[in-house]
Amino acid sequence: MNFQVLTPALVAHLEEIVGPAYVLTAQRTEAAEYAGYGRDHTEDLHYAPEVVVKPANAEQVSEIVRLCHEHHLPVTARGAGTGLSGGALPLHQGLVLSTERLNKIIEIDERNLQATIEPGVINEVFQRAVQEVGLFYPPDPASKGSCFLGGNLAHSSGGPKAVKYGTTRDYVLNLQVVLPTGDIIWTAANTLKNSTGYNLTQLMVGSEGTLGIITKAVFRLLPYPKHNILMLVPFRQEAEAAEAVAAVFRAGIIPSGMEFMEREAIAWSSDYLQIPLTLPEDITAHLLIELDGQDLDQLYKEADQVYAVLERYEVGEILLADNATQKDELWKIRRNIGNAVRYNSVYKEEDTVVPRAELATLLKGVKEIGRRYGFKSVCYGHAGDGNLHVNIIRGDLDDEMWNVGLRQPITEIFELCVKLGGTISGEHGIGLVQKGYIGIALKEANLHLMRGIKQVFDPHGIMNPGKIWTTD
Amino acid sequence: MNFQVLTPALVAHLEEIVGPAYVLTAQRTEAAEYAGYGRDHTEDLHYAPEVVVKPANAEQVSEIVRLCHEHHLPVTARGAGTGLSGGALPLHQGLVLSTERLNKIIEIDERNLQATIEPGVINEVFQRAVQEVGLFYPPDPASKGSCFLGGNLAHSSGGPKAVKYGTTRDYVLNLQVVLPTGDIIWTAANTLKNSTGYNLTQLMVGSEGTLGIITKAVFRLLPYPKHNILMLVPFRQEAEAAEAVAAVFRAGIIPSGMEFMEREAIAWSSDYLQIPLTLPEDITAHLLIELDGQDLDQLYKEADQVYAVLERYEVGEILLADNATQKDELWKIRRNIGNAVRYNSVYKEEDTVVPRAELATLLKGVKEIGRRYGFKSVCYGHAGDGNLHVNIIRGDLDDEMWNVGLRQPITEIFELCVKLGGTISGEHGIGLVQKGYIGIALKEANLHLMRGIKQVFDPHGIMNPGKIWTTD
Repeated sequence: MNFQVLTPALVAHLEEIVGPAYVLTAQRTEAAEYAGYGRDHTEDLHYAPEVVVKPANAEQVSEIVRLCHEHHLPVTARGAGTGLSGGALPLHQGLVLSTERLNKIIEIDERNLQATIEPGVINEVFQRAVQEVGLFYPPDPASKGSCFLGGNLAHSSGGPKAVKYGTTRDYVLNLQVVLPTGDIIWTAANTLKNSTGYNLTQLMVGSEGTLGIITKAVFRLLPYPKHNILMLVPFRQEAEAAEAVAAVFRAGIIPSGMEFMEREAIAWSSDYLQIPLTLPEDITAHLLIELDGQDLDQLYKEADQVYAVLERYEVGEILLADNATQKDELWKIRRNIGNAVRYNSVYKEEDTVVPRAELATLLKGVKEIGRRYGFKSVCYGHAGDGNLHVNIIRGDLDDEMWNVGLRQPITEIFELCVKLGGTISGEHGIGLVQKGYIGIALKEANLHLMRGIKQVFDPHGIMNPGKIWTTD
Repeated sequence: MNFQVLTPALVAHLEEIVGPAYVLTAQRTEAAEYAGYGRDHTEDLHYAPEVVVKPANAEQVSEIVRLCHEHHLPVTARGAGTGLSGGALPLHQGLVLSTERLNKIIEIDERNLQATIEPGVINEVFQRAVQEVGLFYPPDPASKGSCFLGGNLAHSSGGPKAVKYGTTRDYVLNLQVVLPTGDIIWTAANTLKNSTGYNLTQLMVGSEGTLGIITKAVFRLLPYPKHNILMLVPFRQEAEAAEAVAAVFRAGIIPSGMEFMEREAIAWSSDYLQIPLTLPEDITAHLLIELDGQDLDQLYKEADQVYAVLERYEVGEILLADNATQKDELWKIRRNIGNAVRYNSVYKEEDTVVPRAELATLLKGVKEIGRRYGFKSVCYGHAGDGNLHVNIIRGDLDDEMWNVGLRQPITEIFELCVKLGGTISGEHGIGLVQKGYIGIALKEANLHLMRGIKQVFDPHGIMNPGKIWTTD
């Protein structure tokens, strides 16, 4: 794919569209601020854009994209930059289209339990706004305090509550999308059911900015669950922690959170946050189990059933969080594992996912591969979904091993996922850092269809080029 | 689109692939049996295929489809033929590919709460098989006793339980698909989450056999809810019945069924089934409300909350079904409305859907349009989803009105749906009978993308031609 270079005339045209204050170039922007638009939360990667543009509405997005389509300029949409697969990095330069000004909650429709938002709304801001009227938007990535809903849509982000409530894609009813040609469409209708033509909504969700730019989304909402119970369960054997996950579901319980943390994940995070936590020496892993619902008595009954299941395993003393502060602290520890790992070392994160009951086998395989290739990993994740985040720690690995040598063991980890019925990304997306491995998960016939769809939407290949697969 | 005609040589080739016993032609098949393959449950439509082929596995499907691809022969996949939009009718003749021999439940994976099935498995057969091991597959179309899961996938069929549990698409993890070129792919992985490339799974679901033929599906399952409560609530005013639906959700209750039936819907069905039911004269509509869960005490608490909501409206005596037989009878009445209407008269069914709280406005609009154009309609449907089945009764309408004159009022009904934030099919699909109205719901830019996707999958346009839109 050959792209054109940005010219001063094109910059001037962009300024006409959004106003000069909302067009940033390296020459006239403070260096640290500008560099920020070339980074996300993926390793230590940096790719500088030629220009950053901040539109205020769908019409401006349309004009920008139409210009880029005509002039064969790459457009990389960017939310809060909290992505973990490099999806927001402008690999082929061109424009970074920041959605930071598209940050309005347009409507919370209490009659229909729906809300319409722009993509630059922060996940937690949205959650709180709907909670104020007794409603619930469940998807809650670890970065919920800063990540944008647009980025959540681009990757179908999950989070702890996905085990009971599903991921971002399960809440989207309808999307307003600016197509790469500049056309503005709505993908569907504001209805809970829809059998009217191909599902363009779900095609957009998880397409990582390669098919168009989402400028509005309609989400369905639920009644807010009034109560929850949170328990931290220490295990002597990691494999038993993984087994217990499937056993809880078999007992008829669907927890609203079912998180796995190996010893070092929880230890690093509590150290990083300076939250004291006693970790007996024989404990190798924890499950953080949350139950939620409208009726507290019912939740205690369910908790008793969970305890009954856990009795089959060698567990330490179960910590039942009995107030909001303690609950917040436990979740804070879970959510900050990624930050704690980053604080300790550069790392590569592999977003592995397998059928729930295969988690123990995957974990064992990851550790065995690590021993064989001489790297350390810290593993944690959404055990109820079989979604294990494998963090490979750089530590004192040399450049050769870090940049080239890890390719083989990562390949083996992903091959193991696929062999177990899983795949290579559960919620982070393929983006830049996993695209070299896509052939492990998907056959050429699948990739051929995906490339064909890409061509239909984006004939000039301008939308987030160089992501998901390697050939554009 | 120009298609070739079936030759004796091609029939011989098909016989080689599946065996002569599984290739049916008009010449050598009993007339009534053969005619059945040209009909489904849509009005009184009939389109005869040139040949009916019954493959036994994905490899045979692949060989058949590859042959049709090479020779430009239309292929229309057919399940049980219970569809209501004409999706299984071979409009351009060619082959009908019947999935009736692909009827194996391949695996019920109790560890992972998943099952793998072939498309010819009857919905209720599957539901019962998983229930035997304590698991739950919720989607339950009215035709569940005969419809195939493959047809459910083709239209993303819903049913009463969709209001709490979602439609077919919400249970599919992975699909084995024979592409129109004969390639066999799996669309995804057997995982609850997946952010690995474009969502081909959800693109296939609801594509009505126009993109390929599903030969296996992996569904996620839930723990079976041990208890349920069913109540039949008579309303004096239809509009209040529709309003009560939204109010129940606002009270924090998510019922597992929330069905609306206007007076004649329930009266016709109970007459048809000869199940006696007292209908006081002042009752114009009913809601059938089901609650389900693992704990009966909890359900009674929820039922009390529902009663509290209903006190705000003018309701008659609520019938609380207190045994399994009574529950079965009430559901039987609901499920047989379609059959009862068909027994009374030829009818056209419009599968309208709007945001839940707009149901009263839609219903009022439908009746007003009916009065203006002089037709009678019987309305019922999944009120919790805003999905209203509008049955236009032929009665003594003349041919001109039935075949041409109804086009304008149906257009007005669909325009009203779209104006209210809805669309023209909630769960039946567009198929043959609604394709003339697709432009009301979808803009040209949407249709352009859909046609482009179709072209990528099916370059010769052989898969179920003439459906969804009018231009192939």
